[in-house]
Amino acid sequence: MKRLAENAARNLTAVREQKPLIHNITNYVVMNYTANALLAMGASPVMAHAPNEVEEMVSFAGALVLNIGTLSDDWVASMIKAGKRASAAAIPIVLDPVGSGATALRTGAAKSIIQETRVSVIRGNASEVLSLRHENSKTKGVDAIHSVEAAAGSAAILADELGCVLAITGPTDLITDGQQVIRVFNGHPLMRYVTGTGCTATAAIGAFLAVDRNPVSAAATALAFFGLAGEVAAENASAPGSFMIAMLDALYTITPEKLRKGCRFEV
Amino acid sequence: MKRLAENAARNLTAVREQKPLIHNITNYVVMNYTANALLAMGASPVMAHAPNEVEEMVSFAGALVLNIGTLSDDWVASMIKAGKRASAAAIPIVLDPVGSGATALRTGAAKSIIQETRVSVIRGNASEVLSLRHENSKTKGVDAIHSVEAAAGSAAILADELGCVLAITGPTDLITDGQQVIRVFNGHPLMRYVTGTGCTATAAIGAFLAVDRNPVSAAATALAFFGLAGEVAAENASAPGSFMIAMLDALYTITPEKLRKGCRFEV
Amino acid sequence: MKRLAENAARNLTAVREQKPLIHNITNYVVMNYTANALLAMGASPVMAHAPNEVEEMVSFAGALVLNIGTLSDDWVASMIKAGKRASAAAIPIVLDPVGSGATALRTGAAKSIIQETRVSVIRGNASEVLSLRHENSKTKGVDAIHSVEAAAGSAAILADELGCVLAITGPTDLITDGQQVIRVFNGHPLMRYVTGTGCTATAAIGAFLAVDRNPVSAAATALAFFGLAGEVAAENASAPGSFMIAMLDALYTITPEKLRKGCRFEV
Repeated sequence: MKRLAENAARNLTAVREQKPLIHNITNYVVMNYTANALLAMGASPVMAHAPNEVEEMVSFAGALVLNIGTLSDDWVASMIKAGKRASAAAIPIVLDPVGSGATALRTGAAKSIIQETRVSVIRGNASEVLSLRHENSKTKGVDAIHSVEAAAGSAAILADELGCVLAITGPTDLITDGQQVIRVFNGHPLMRYVTGTGCTATAAIGAFLAVDRNPVSAAATALAFFGLAGEVAAENASAPGSFMIAMLDALYTITPEKLRKGCRFEV
Repeated sequence: MKRLAENAARNLTAVREQKPLIHNITNYVVMNYTANALLAMGASPVMAHAPNEVEEMVSFAGALVLNIGTLSDDWVASMIKAGKRASAAAIPIVLDPVGSGATALRTGAAKSIIQETRVSVIRGNASEVLSLRHENSKTKGVDAIHSVEAAAGSAAILADELGCVLAITGPTDLITDGQQVIRVFNGHPLMRYVTGTGCTATAAIGAFLAVDRNPVSAAATALAFFGLAGEVAAENASAPGSFMIAMLDALYTITPEKLRKGCRFEV
Repeated sequence: MKRLAENAARNLTAVREQKPLIHNITNYVVMNYTANALLAMGASPVMAHAPNEVEEMVSFAGALVLNIGTLSDDWVASMIKAGKRASAAAIPIVLDPVGSGATALRTGAAKSIIQETRVSVIRGNASEVLSLRHENSKTKGVDAIHSVEAAAGSAAILADELGCVLAITGPTDLITDGQQVIRVFNGHPLMRYVTGTGCTATAAIGAFLAVDRNPVSAAATALAFFGLAGEVAAENASAPGSFMIAMLDALYTITPEKLRKGCRFEV
């Protein structure tokens, strides 16, 4: 736990110093908030989805963030194209399978991306992540329908099968590569009332992956940082509008030292 | 009027308890604000436009919101596809004909959606709504060019002809199914300075339609709620940026009891 | 300088009185913020990109804003289509070549737009603007990699070659038509931490071009206004989230008189 706290502080420092370029192919709903969150935490976001530029763009990036929230066939094709180039260049990929399990298109797209590229981390709620194995799970939109605890056992097996790190977020977050299981306790209930907090947590993982090639450490520390931003925001805001703005402020104002002291893990 | 006030409180309670899934096929500009507003009021938004998933997605939804603000032919085709499925399943549809009357594409798209699907409620400004009959109305972007009062008579006739409820918003809102005419007096002038307040009012109607199958009641109470959120926001904010955030806060903090007391109707 | 200060106040007054329609074909990330900024300053934004409506839409507009931030081939084709119609009708065009120089697609698209339409003003950072001549400049995403000062000489030559006004923004902004060189000192470092401040500055130039057909004056006064909004915002906010909201407030509350006194030019 102490090691993870040190990693968290180190990763935040590194993001602010290196300002890694994070290439996002993400959904229309959260593009603005995601870009602002990445800027606030110190990274350099770029959004680019055209098939005739994603390979060139991703080659400059420290990480690639793929998110199927408002997917269509051509966007998924661009995600796979960018993902293949990233895989070849050992640029880490984080996938957000928004709504996987809710429709056949989403489940199929998420599975295709996993199959055709080398995804380092998948971040979703329990229902989305578990749908990557089970076809019969139906999510209610992008809301979680399974508890994080109930998913822990299945997640470790699934991480091992898929060969990547799973980060299942909820009241408690769970990160596993099949061997290690880490829980992150940071966060605040108001985060559920802001669209794209999940998607933006995924982008934060992307920023941390750009400076920490251990995907378990990168995912856990990014989620602790993002959750702590929610806690800090809740000190100043008690309703979703002002809360979502206060979160952007917190991503900017939280120091590595504050993160080191405030992150709460269980290994 | 007392009945409508009771309906308003009941509908808000029902949205917060049932958290209906609201499927939006809407414009790029307002997706984020609309999703945040739906979350703040208690609903579950999902945005999905791919032709190969809209039918499946809408089948889970409590209401379908169609908005042509940044339309293109393929998005309109998806709207009609989703709308047909919703119609067949008796899932209510609310249409926002953004800019109808301003260009031939918009007027044509709005008319096609009305013709090919069973729209329950159309929400627009006077110019947009009246353009659905008259080809010679030109709106200046998405701003109203007709007064609400001048439009009242025409609206009742048009609602009857189209067989759906018209909700014409402006300084005073007017809701009619051709028989009843209801006016809503809630609202605040700063709402005109926030992009997508009209579009988001349309989405709020969608959330209320999911719990109140009387479209006149659903539209009138949703607009009263949304307008009251503007009034509450104006108590804490006097410029558009802070006002738009305060509106999200108000959509979350207004209680059913406060809405019952604060809504202002004329039947 | 005194003349420019008078122009700035006059232009802001004119935007608020005339509420010019500004047609934006811009990127997904900034559409919402851009629309809100244009509304806050007094203009009427519209976003429309469909090939079968852009010519009709732009014919109503006071200016056309083209931005390649999330470009794809079909959107660039629509930009050129709208731009040709605007050129024929003497409607001013402002171009934001986001990321030009970073990928071949972006550089090529920006050059095509410049070649096929009559662009009045190009606004970008030094790297983006200079890439319009030099193929060998690589920007790191949308961040500036050249100093404004170093770019001044090249910019004047390039403006002359391209036959349009260049507005290069950074800690100090530089506006030149090849003859005149104006520097604008307004602005605040937090603007770099809000996505789309550059893009929104471009839209502000569009609003001022709609009321001031001298593109050097329009660009310089718009950037002074936008930069002053950043300064005013920083009086009330010290982190990016609250700062971006305070900027929208400032675009609404700054009076022409305050702008006249607060703008800082060097000719």
